[in-house]
Amino acid sequence: MAPRLISRFIDCSMSFSTGKADSLYGSCIAIDGLDTSRWGVESVFRDLRDGGVTAINATIAIWDDFNSTMDNIARWLAWFDQFSEFIRPVHSAADIHSAKSENRCGIIFGWQNATPIGNSLDRLALFHRLGVRIVQLTYNERNLLGNGCYERKDDGLSKFGQAAIDEMNRVGILIDLSHTGDRTVMETIERSAAPVAFTHANARSQCDHPRNKTDEAIRALVAKGGVIGANAFPMFFPNGFDSTLDDYLDAIEYLLEMVGPEHVAVGTDFCQEQSRAWFEWLFASQGTIPAREVAYTPHPYRHLHGLEGTRQFGNIAAGLSGRGYGDDDVRKIIGGNWLRLFAQVWEGIE
Amino acid sequence: MAPRLISRFIDCSMSFSTGKADSLYGSCIAIDGLDTSRWGVESVFRDLRDGGVTAINATIAIWDDFNSTMDNIARWLAWFDQFSEFIRPVHSAADIHSAKSENRCGIIFGWQNATPIGNSLDRLALFHRLGVRIVQLTYNERNLLGNGCYERKDDGLSKFGQAAIDEMNRVGILIDLSHTGDRTVMETIERSAAPVAFTHANARSQCDHPRNKTDEAIRALVAKGGVIGANAFPMFFPNGFDSTLDDYLDAIEYLLEMVGPEHVAVGTDFCQEQSRAWFEWLFASQGTIPAREVAYTPHPYRHLHGLEGTRQFGNIAAGLSGRGYGDDDVRKIIGGNWLRLFAQVWEGIE
Repeated sequence: MAPRLISRFIDCSMSFSTGKADSLYGSCIAIDGLDTSRWGVESVFRDLRDGGVTAINATIAIWDDFNSTMDNIARWLAWFDQFSEFIRPVHSAADIHSAKSENRCGIIFGWQNATPIGNSLDRLALFHRLGVRIVQLTYNERNLLGNGCYERKDDGLSKFGQAAIDEMNRVGILIDLSHTGDRTVMETIERSAAPVAFTHANARSQCDHPRNKTDEAIRALVAKGGVIGANAFPMFFPNGFDSTLDDYLDAIEYLLEMVGPEHVAVGTDFCQEQSRAWFEWLFASQGTIPAREVAYTPHPYRHLHGLEGTRQFGNIAAGLSGRGYGDDDVRKIIGGNWLRLFAQVWEGIE
Repeated sequence: MAPRLISRFIDCSMSFSTGKADSLYGSCIAIDGLDTSRWGVESVFRDLRDGGVTAINATIAIWDDFNSTMDNIARWLAWFDQFSEFIRPVHSAADIHSAKSENRCGIIFGWQNATPIGNSLDRLALFHRLGVRIVQLTYNERNLLGNGCYERKDDGLSKFGQAAIDEMNRVGILIDLSHTGDRTVMETIERSAAPVAFTHANARSQCDHPRNKTDEAIRALVAKGGVIGANAFPMFFPNGFDSTLDDYLDAIEYLLEMVGPEHVAVGTDFCQEQSRAWFEWLFASQGTIPAREVAYTPHPYRHLHGLEGTRQFGNIAAGLSGRGYGDDDVRKIIGGNWLRLFAQVWEGIE
């Protein structure tokens, strides 16, 4: 596939002085709907702060079970002390505002798989108490709740999955359906009393990939008040690792044209400092059976040209402005829509 | 429904002197394809020995995970010492012959759900080393491998389920599909290189219940060398708790007429000494969400009239003889078919 023209490409060497409230980006609440980087690494936390990212949905569980997720949370408690210069925990919308005023990045605990609850719905309230606010129903394959987007087939929600949705609604956990299978997605949108999210996914009608979402699903999610965070993971773009920020802005624009500026946001899927071993774990069936083929070169992994990492997060805002979007729309897309959805689902704030 | 005539009913007060090798039953290898009683209770173990049961598929995991199953096995190791007068472990077909000559009941570790492996197929060889020889793929609902017979829908095996079947074939674990959903059943029979079993199920065409098996599934299982153990759990008979040994013999005969004496066996589903709490756990969704309705009176639970427990196991053999089956057929049905299948799947003995 021929590389696309990148006439509107933003130079990645461009440095955003994100602390400056006089710039549009500097004054924004900037939220990343999905960041699955290697946590505990100082540069990762520093870049989040320096990149002016107000809050992130930080993945703390993928193929994890109860014990490993508890261990991960225990590590995070130590990191909040150790790296308090750069990060702070987020349990509420108010905590996100505090992160902004403190010039730190707010960490929202998120899961990419519901496996840590095992077969116990009571654990949802337990993990909520510890700060978990976003739970992806399934990751790529099957779990007790439903199916993932790479599973052989998808017969939708199980009985347990239905009950889990009701319980997440009750305790105030945002349901994420990015890696979830098509039928499970539709049944969850239908079932959930609260709006749900695609924290990091694009439109399949724009780029035909099972990880991208059908127009039907995107419209149904939005009709119930949900938000889709456009995904910047290179493998979900036609040009793969030759893709650029410009391609990402195209993906955002495509969604904006479909559902309007109230329901589109950012979910970079950043994997800063992750190892080859981590990517192999990520792509293994159920996290244990090595993938026969990995659909992309996992290592050294690099993100989009012009959006290499969290330090370039402001390029998204600048790029949208450069394409003629007004400040209000940019604010919504760069974080306002996530903030509204979080407040609504976590705390019932309409 | 009116009670059926029980003209051929065997008096349950009839006492079998099972040690006497001069009786047909006394000379049989008698195997129960499924016993899920309360283990560690002396009377339960004593009754198995006194009832002349040579070996049982003893359920040691249902809604269990890795840790609880390991704990259960640890308890069994102590019980094998404590109750060595009545029971012995079975890891091979030869162990079943030893149990017979020692006048003890051989204990085959079996699971009714594959959940103890979590997401790790390596654990199959680990548990095999500890004696696990029979694994039911799914229990009533969904797990990582496939669906159960009471799940909302059944889309068959997952990728992980396919890989798990291959691994059970490799290490020599018998796959049980009694509580498995229809589509998952058919895909497993198709996938498995080794014969598989319904350790405790009847024909749905005889009694229409989701726990009973379609004719298509029974014939497909038998075509690949599998065995079906007729189930004596009262709720799967038209007369429910008014059912008798005679109804059970009817179920066996129905299967015999369908697939012949080489492929029919016994799986009582005995639940000796189990508590109400245990039944509630059994019928809860994923073992944790209480069932809204329990389809039968769980407590005090009682088995069939004339087949109240393991002490009456010999009544099955006598009943079959009474219905005119020859000694060779009775021997196969009462244990020989299980023994042949176990040797074949566990040790590759044809």
